[in-house]
Amino acid sequence: MPLEERSGCPINLSMETFGDRWSLVVLRDIMFGNRRHFRELLTQSEEGIASNILAARLKRLLDLRLVSKRADPGHKQKAIYSLTEKSIQLVPVFAMLGAWGRKHLPVSRELSVRAQLLEEGGPALWEAFMDELRGIHLGATRAADARSVLAELQAAYERELAAAGCRK
Amino acid sequence: MPLEERSGCPINLSMETFGDRWSLVVLRDIMFGNRRHFRELLTQSEEGIASNILAARLKRLLDLRLVSKRADPGHKQKAIYSLTEKSIQLVPVFAMLGAWGRKHLPVSRELSVRAQLLEEGGPALWEAFMDELRGIHLGATRAADARSVLAELQAAYERELAAAGCRK
Repeated sequence: MPLEERSGCPINLSMETFGDRWSLVVLRDIMFGNRRHFRELLTQSEEGIASNILAARLKRLLDLRLVSKRADPGHKQKAIYSLTEKSIQLVPVFAMLGAWGRKHLPVSRELSVRAQLLEEGGPALWEAFMDELRGIHLGATRAADARSVLAELQAAYERELAAAGCRK
Repeated sequence: MPLEERSGCPINLSMETFGDRWSLVVLRDIMFGNRRHFRELLTQSEEGIASNILAARLKRLLDLRLVSKRADPGHKQKAIYSLTEKSIQLVPVFAMLGAWGRKHLPVSRELSVRAQLLEEGGPALWEAFMDELRGIHLGATRAADARSVLAELQAAYERELAAAGCRK
């Protein structure tokens, strides 16, 4: 389904693009969780997305070129999903949305520590993260010692999980 | 309808809050167009929102305390809708979403010039705009000579409308 284009306003067109309950959540899992196969996106979903909804969202994201799909070189039967330059550039949107959600919605500590790092890191961290995502998803070449924001976010998340375990 | 809270992730909860086609578009019209009455929101809608959808969205935004509603002091039969501190703080989200939309979606020049100003103005302009919105919607006191970002955005929009007329 292409955009309706009811108006040429960027907010309207953005909402026509991913103004639904699941599209950004699926992109979040590909981006921050590096979940690249259908099964991972389905079974590791924190929110318990249903299989038919996931399939429909992925198809729409493909149509809108927010994800791309190819055969997994290591696994001929499996498709691997990747972000595109268009969706990689959603990093600042995720950062601002996460910052707002942390402040105004009943977030859990474990699931919001990555949003906190993204907010506090500001534009410099977003650029480093987008650069890393281009390496992972678009095959862009990076220096061997380039910063891994993904590893930093994951480490912070795991520290929080461990701390939450201790608090129980 | 309250949030389902399928997970405590800020992106998930944000999408549970306004992950639909219309909620942010209605908030946009209240925020940037200062449309405060149901009829204005309905008849001036660029996207031609339907009356029943507008009523349902406003009700949901009220439930989630993203808007408030009171009798219009000048018009006893009419209700006036206002932003809340929670929705005023969406300004940076609108800015980043508008920046992304301008770059990746088929926006029109007239309807994207305000997004451009918001993007280029950065955090200092967002703060000034939120301060102004607190004056308009929450009754906060402001200096008589305080900056009006709303007037700046509106003037830029009208210049573009006029220029578009000349190009025809």
